[in-house]
Amino acid sequence: MGIAGSARLGRVTDVVEPLRVGVLGARGRMGVEVCRAVDKAEDLDLVAMIDQGDWLFNASDAGAQVVVDFTTPDVVLDNLHWCIDQGINVVVGTSGFTDERIARVRGWLEKKPEVGVVIAPNFGIGAVLMMEFAERAARYFDSVEIIEQHHPKKVDAPSGTALHTARLIEQARKAAGLGEMPDATTEEMPGARGAEVGGVRVHSVRAAGLVAHQEVLFGAAGELLTIRHDSFDRASFMPGVLLAIREVAKRPGLTLGLAALL
Amino acid sequence: MGIAGSARLGRVTDVVEPLRVGVLGARGRMGVEVCRAVDKAEDLDLVAMIDQGDWLFNASDAGAQVVVDFTTPDVVLDNLHWCIDQGINVVVGTSGFTDERIARVRGWLEKKPEVGVVIAPNFGIGAVLMMEFAERAARYFDSVEIIEQHHPKKVDAPSGTALHTARLIEQARKAAGLGEMPDATTEEMPGARGAEVGGVRVHSVRAAGLVAHQEVLFGAAGELLTIRHDSFDRASFMPGVLLAIREVAKRPGLTLGLAALL
Amino acid sequence: MGIAGSARLGRVTDVVEPLRVGVLGARGRMGVEVCRAVDKAEDLDLVAMIDQGDWLFNASDAGAQVVVDFTTPDVVLDNLHWCIDQGINVVVGTSGFTDERIARVRGWLEKKPEVGVVIAPNFGIGAVLMMEFAERAARYFDSVEIIEQHHPKKVDAPSGTALHTARLIEQARKAAGLGEMPDATTEEMPGARGAEVGGVRVHSVRAAGLVAHQEVLFGAAGELLTIRHDSFDRASFMPGVLLAIREVAKRPGLTLGLAALL
Amino acid sequence: MGIAGSARLGRVTDVVEPLRVGVLGARGRMGVEVCRAVDKAEDLDLVAMIDQGDWLFNASDAGAQVVVDFTTPDVVLDNLHWCIDQGINVVVGTSGFTDERIARVRGWLEKKPEVGVVIAPNFGIGAVLMMEFAERAARYFDSVEIIEQHHPKKVDAPSGTALHTARLIEQARKAAGLGEMPDATTEEMPGARGAEVGGVRVHSVRAAGLVAHQEVLFGAAGELLTIRHDSFDRASFMPGVLLAIREVAKRPGLTLGLAALL
Repeated sequence: MGIAGSARLGRVTDVVEPLRVGVLGARGRMGVEVCRAVDKAEDLDLVAMIDQGDWLFNASDAGAQVVVDFTTPDVVLDNLHWCIDQGINVVVGTSGFTDERIARVRGWLEKKPEVGVVIAPNFGIGAVLMMEFAERAARYFDSVEIIEQHHPKKVDAPSGTALHTARLIEQARKAAGLGEMPDATTEEMPGARGAEVGGVRVHSVRAAGLVAHQEVLFGAAGELLTIRHDSFDRASFMPGVLLAIREVAKRPGLTLGLAALL
Repeated sequence: MGIAGSARLGRVTDVVEPLRVGVLGARGRMGVEVCRAVDKAEDLDLVAMIDQGDWLFNASDAGAQVVVDFTTPDVVLDNLHWCIDQGINVVVGTSGFTDERIARVRGWLEKKPEVGVVIAPNFGIGAVLMMEFAERAARYFDSVEIIEQHHPKKVDAPSGTALHTARLIEQARKAAGLGEMPDATTEEMPGARGAEVGGVRVHSVRAAGLVAHQEVLFGAAGELLTIRHDSFDRASFMPGVLLAIREVAKRPGLTLGLAALL
Repeated sequence: MGIAGSARLGRVTDVVEPLRVGVLGARGRMGVEVCRAVDKAEDLDLVAMIDQGDWLFNASDAGAQVVVDFTTPDVVLDNLHWCIDQGINVVVGTSGFTDERIARVRGWLEKKPEVGVVIAPNFGIGAVLMMEFAERAARYFDSVEIIEQHHPKKVDAPSGTALHTARLIEQARKAAGLGEMPDATTEEMPGARGAEVGGVRVHSVRAAGLVAHQEVLFGAAGELLTIRHDSFDRASFMPGVLLAIREVAKRPGLTLGLAALL
Repeated sequence: MGIAGSARLGRVTDVVEPLRVGVLGARGRMGVEVCRAVDKAEDLDLVAMIDQGDWLFNASDAGAQVVVDFTTPDVVLDNLHWCIDQGINVVVGTSGFTDERIARVRGWLEKKPEVGVVIAPNFGIGAVLMMEFAERAARYFDSVEIIEQHHPKKVDAPSGTALHTARLIEQARKAAGLGEMPDATTEEMPGARGAEVGGVRVHSVRAAGLVAHQEVLFGAAGELLTIRHDSFDRASFMPGVLLAIREVAKRPGLTLGLAALL
């Protein structure tokens, strides 16, 4: 439902008003996608598109019930503080949330316990499921390695998602009392790209034609289990953003990560 | 621990007696593997290897606490009845359990509520996780198809595992209120191998060199999630059998499927 | 090099004039990409962009040495006839070339033996190599199956590339004296998507998130060889189009398929 | 055809005597497989199975026309010398052939120009085709990386096949005038397993459940081409050994590598 259609009713079955959504960072690459996705969703109403130079009050004036923030680390905290003060629920995709920053958000929420905030580093449902499955499978296999594959313009290796997956696997193996993986290698050569993270090997492939892909390979005697995620497009994050928008008002307080909503 | 070592203690940490295990169908292909796996496990004691022509009493005489049955559909029910009567826990990998047969097992267990029985069609932990993950992911993607790949001596297509996976996905999609998958195909040709099961397409590849493989492919705008299981060897079922042996005594009554133990 | 830069020299190493290229169907989806790719190439000069309503004479007036045709089946023959008459080499990506149409092109070329024409159904170098490799490997394996995967808006199944690959494999197997593939299937179900083409099974997967992918799987006792091509973007056809542009003038007469240029 | 059946004719179509084959190292792991494969082949006759402590003269006494050598680097040269002197063709799978050793073989063959010798480091037809295809495709893609995957008992990383493939790709790229692959990585971590060989990245995965696998990934704007080989079993080398046996007598002099026979 577009801005002009804000008076229209939602799905007839439940006859509820559509949820009123504002977008901060509306002209950024992710913001543009979010505006488009909210606009298309019948149960959501895009009531404010705000970017640099616009007033945050536009969001409250338009009656936004949820604000989505895809801005930058230097302004996101002020945005969050303002929204919480106004009693507006917030979905945050902006990066840079350290433990210290999260503690500050928790502090603001103590005074407004009815407000919901969802902060997620990754809104790709497929990627989040991949990590959940990897964590779940980790205790049942002798070996596990991660192969992440990205376009050659990426500056860091391994990817953040691969590092995070490796740490989840490391913890799950430790919790299950698993020891080191079997490994007889004695002759090695230098120059590979990747890392060893908590005993888990990560391989970083960089090639033209690739976008963003990750494979987690589990092995035990006589069998392999592979979990692979391929992401081709920012569009793949929109179902996760919409899910968070629909859920945030039902979950007062702070929710970290999309996994908690699945 | 081998038969001769039955007096040895288990792991020092818990100083418990090893669990005494009997195997029915001990000379069959799976039975041989099970005997070998139990024999190798330090916390298990292989006390009876029974096959056609041997007395079931060998199991009770040897003090078996758990019996594993990999026999045939025509004798498995008698075996189960006898074990339950004797108060011996049972792990069953034999096939052919209809609803009617399961009802009879439940009847016997009512009189011996302290006995545990685990009946599982598939002891491959990897395969069971694949199905669990497929069921879990089903509601989040517009499309899903299954590609199962087997050696060319297999007589049925699609495989039982693929059919079971398709039905789990069908139910999960229905429960989530998902409709039909997007599909614009208007020109088709005959001759493909596979099936459509509850709206889920299954592709059956048969080729020399293959053993037993299955891939479940989930797709949504801009992303794919793939869960793949490769099974090369009966050895891959042994961790699942050992897990069931260790768990069955702790779970009085009937447990269907390995998934409940993971 | 853009239109405005047509007077600039090509690479200094060979100090040759850039090749003058005209594009027919310049406002179509492929045409736009071709114009962009020619414009970027230092050794090529985009001298004419022609679409519906424009005069073909624009190409000859601009001194085009090669014309690229991505138009429609109903106008492509007239375009070709005119270009050949004018002595302009042509690279054709428009579809619909039956044997009868090809015979007519050959007839026109007999009177202008110095003109080169390249007609190719697929300008993806990766796809062409995949087919070449599949044809080459076919005689060495007992089994082969094709799995093609496309977006769900595709109307035909199997894809044209899959059908063409299957026929190449069929011919290669016949030429090598190979018989039928091993196959013990006796129980089958209906509803699979794909086809059997000359004894080669093709599986057609259709799912959101997919673009255009094909896998050819070869199997023999104890081994598999897989050749896979993933195409995400029309950009992937441009290297093949540029190759054809650079080669067509050196190859008088008719060349069918990109493979001949690799 | 078994030893006892040596008098039987070959295929009726050509009505030729079966080729008489001796195997050196007949009780080794590969030798046993070779004996079995030769025994099964209708056009071959297994006339001598020789191992440590047996006389080489058994081969000539039995009228062997081809001898297959899967022995050890310390005896293979003596075996070869003796066979060439006797005028017996040889297929060698034993490793350890340095340039110097090959020069000596060439020297012996000069005096017996009618004898054929095939020395191959790898008799897997699939693996040889993978390398051939990788070399062929190398010049058409901006990027290429190799992912090899093996069981965790392997002592060296990367595998010999991966190193050889990387060098073939390096040479093909150089010959085509390609420069370095695109790469923007600035932040890296240590601990990855693999290597960089002539600018080509190799990733070495080691996990339980794996046997011997290799994937070569080529990438260009908008497309990927992947060539993958999976080897599960020594049986996969037999078609290559049989091919060499059938071809060696037709190719006097030294042939290095199976590729030359395909």
